[in-house]
Amino acid sequence: MRCEQVRDYGVVVCDGSLPDLQDVLPMTSSGSLRALALTTPTVDRLYGDVLRRWLGRTGLDAIVDVMPLTEHTKTMEAALRVSAAAQRHGLGRRDVIVAFGGGVCSDVASVAASLTRRGIGHITIPTTLVGQVDAGIGLKGGVNFEGSKNYLGCFSPPQLALINPAYLRSLPARELRCGTAEIMKMALIRERALFDVLGENGVTLIGSGFSEPPDVARYVIARSVRLMLEELRPNSYEDQTLQRLVDFGHTFSATLEERSGYRLRHGEAVAIDMALSCELATRLDILDAREHDEILWSFKTLGLPISSPLMTLEAAYHAMDVTAAHRGGSLNLVVPPTIGEGMFIVDASEVHGGLLQASIDHLRSEAGHGPFPVSAVQRER
Amino acid sequence: MRCEQVRDYGVVVCDGSLPDLQDVLPMTSSGSLRALALTTPTVDRLYGDVLRRWLGRTGLDAIVDVMPLTEHTKTMEAALRVSAAAQRHGLGRRDVIVAFGGGVCSDVASVAASLTRRGIGHITIPTTLVGQVDAGIGLKGGVNFEGSKNYLGCFSPPQLALINPAYLRSLPARELRCGTAEIMKMALIRERALFDVLGENGVTLIGSGFSEPPDVARYVIARSVRLMLEELRPNSYEDQTLQRLVDFGHTFSATLEERSGYRLRHGEAVAIDMALSCELATRLDILDAREHDEILWSFKTLGLPISSPLMTLEAAYHAMDVTAAHRGGSLNLVVPPTIGEGMFIVDASEVHGGLLQASIDHLRSEAGHGPFPVSAVQRER
Repeated sequence: MRCEQVRDYGVVVCDGSLPDLQDVLPMTSSGSLRALALTTPTVDRLYGDVLRRWLGRTGLDAIVDVMPLTEHTKTMEAALRVSAAAQRHGLGRRDVIVAFGGGVCSDVASVAASLTRRGIGHITIPTTLVGQVDAGIGLKGGVNFEGSKNYLGCFSPPQLALINPAYLRSLPARELRCGTAEIMKMALIRERALFDVLGENGVTLIGSGFSEPPDVARYVIARSVRLMLEELRPNSYEDQTLQRLVDFGHTFSATLEERSGYRLRHGEAVAIDMALSCELATRLDILDAREHDEILWSFKTLGLPISSPLMTLEAAYHAMDVTAAHRGGSLNLVVPPTIGEGMFIVDASEVHGGLLQASIDHLRSEAGHGPFPVSAVQRER
Repeated sequence: MRCEQVRDYGVVVCDGSLPDLQDVLPMTSSGSLRALALTTPTVDRLYGDVLRRWLGRTGLDAIVDVMPLTEHTKTMEAALRVSAAAQRHGLGRRDVIVAFGGGVCSDVASVAASLTRRGIGHITIPTTLVGQVDAGIGLKGGVNFEGSKNYLGCFSPPQLALINPAYLRSLPARELRCGTAEIMKMALIRERALFDVLGENGVTLIGSGFSEPPDVARYVIARSVRLMLEELRPNSYEDQTLQRLVDFGHTFSATLEERSGYRLRHGEAVAIDMALSCELATRLDILDAREHDEILWSFKTLGLPISSPLMTLEAAYHAMDVTAAHRGGSLNLVVPPTIGEGMFIVDASEVHGGLLQASIDHLRSEAGHGPFPVSAVQRER
């Protein structure tokens, strides 16, 4: 027997305010929907009024559930708390869970929605840059389990993702750099032009909470979202191939995050992972040394970390083992042969110990030099 | 953006022994797979050797996890215990969880598989009649949550379901009657001929653990499976319509099960629900009275319950409310206009209180009469 599932979802990049829901989401004719909106105390303090006004305008019968959500509480317990709230509020199968917050919020909401009544809809309104260009627009929800990042989760596209760059103004620089790392990921494997725009405007964008220059901010976000969706579309459920360009920066990073006790943020770990992947690529004659320097310079200029004391040879081996198990036995390390393109190092045997150690050492010494001290990111903690 | 997911799954009705896996499941070329087999103490005692021999023959690197699983422990905690075992055993994304047991076992395994690494494969080998004709071959996994039956769950087709009627010989009569109720469901809404075969052979089948007459046993199971899959195929994820003929007997039953503290088995609750639905259909001039009598006679002959002290007017209303919430606001009560066909009573307002009360009362008095005392099923507890 063959089972086919087709789901549509829309991504709307807004221009300062959230659109009316009826303009962007085809509603069922069966009348008003119920909604459970999930948000965090910080986002509630900053934008809770915006959320409630918008919910009021939508005609949804909505309640707002405010829950502290961090990488530490991104667990099945949190997802089940949301499901219990959905049950108490009487959500039916055509009702929705709305995630109003960062990547952890949309991850937890997505897992809860996929389990509740065997799957109800969800809408994401990401309020962080990571959420807007990555976590909030993908199909994956995940929670940490028994020490493993995102070990449990689901593939469950949101019905709708509303991307409003206006929320980014209040973000701390560290958060903005984390999101910039994800944009950098898309640029390095897909589009040289986006890399150049980031290089020219990145410092201003981060300094202004992605409000200056406004056109550039919107372009960078919309472009990054578009490239991400293009990559996801043909392989949304990762059932066609386990070779995905968007896994660039996602081989060593989960191990770093776990071992830092999540003090290292996801975007920071991704940046360190991308730097190591590029270093390996250069040493394997895949990436030109001048382009490699250009990438490292760009990371340093934007304040993205390229090294960490946690990035040891042992950690690298562990990460490669764990990742290969998750990619059907193959390493599938993504590297850019040139800025704007991606390819895979399929077999772990190509990345031998001497090569790894030399790459780790070189990045560690490089981290001390450059236009800004790259360790600044760590010092902020 | 549009996301498409296509999954194939095979159902094999075996002839006394389990087939070689390589004959029925296209394996990946990447070598041997790991497997976690889930089973219960009772099944392990009866057929644990069969399972281990089969796992040995498959070339799977398998461990067997024996866990007590009942409707009471069909919870997210049980599913997470399975995921934790999968993690300890190092299951990768192309590895599988094997459910060797009844409906609860396949439900829990299915939920665990769908969450682990955001979804790994699972194979069901149902050892109960309910599992072989219903729970083990559908796409749905579910666990009970906060007092609601199957409130949390997933749509996740098994890669393979292996149906071996030989396991049914050791089942108690009560279990066999529960499975017969699910076969009766398919017969009443889809195929008069299957209803007639059940009428002629049902008592012998139940008495012999579906071993006599052997050809009839295999025919009844294979036919019921076939009809079930035909119904599921066009609407596997219940995203096309919430009107499903296979929901016959599944409107009042969940409430009865919950309120009995799961002392009433699923199949028994389904039988009581079908009897009430048919009674309502007759009183609404949808089902001919003679066919209704024929159905009740058949239920009684097979020892299927048609009434329960828990089936009150209040319970019926509660069940209708809960069901409508789960069916997008519509009742969609399935009734047979004639034996072998199904239709829907869409609107709850058509089933008014007087009608419900008269139907409940009539079935309660009917339960006292007949070829066998129908309350026998309850007395066995």
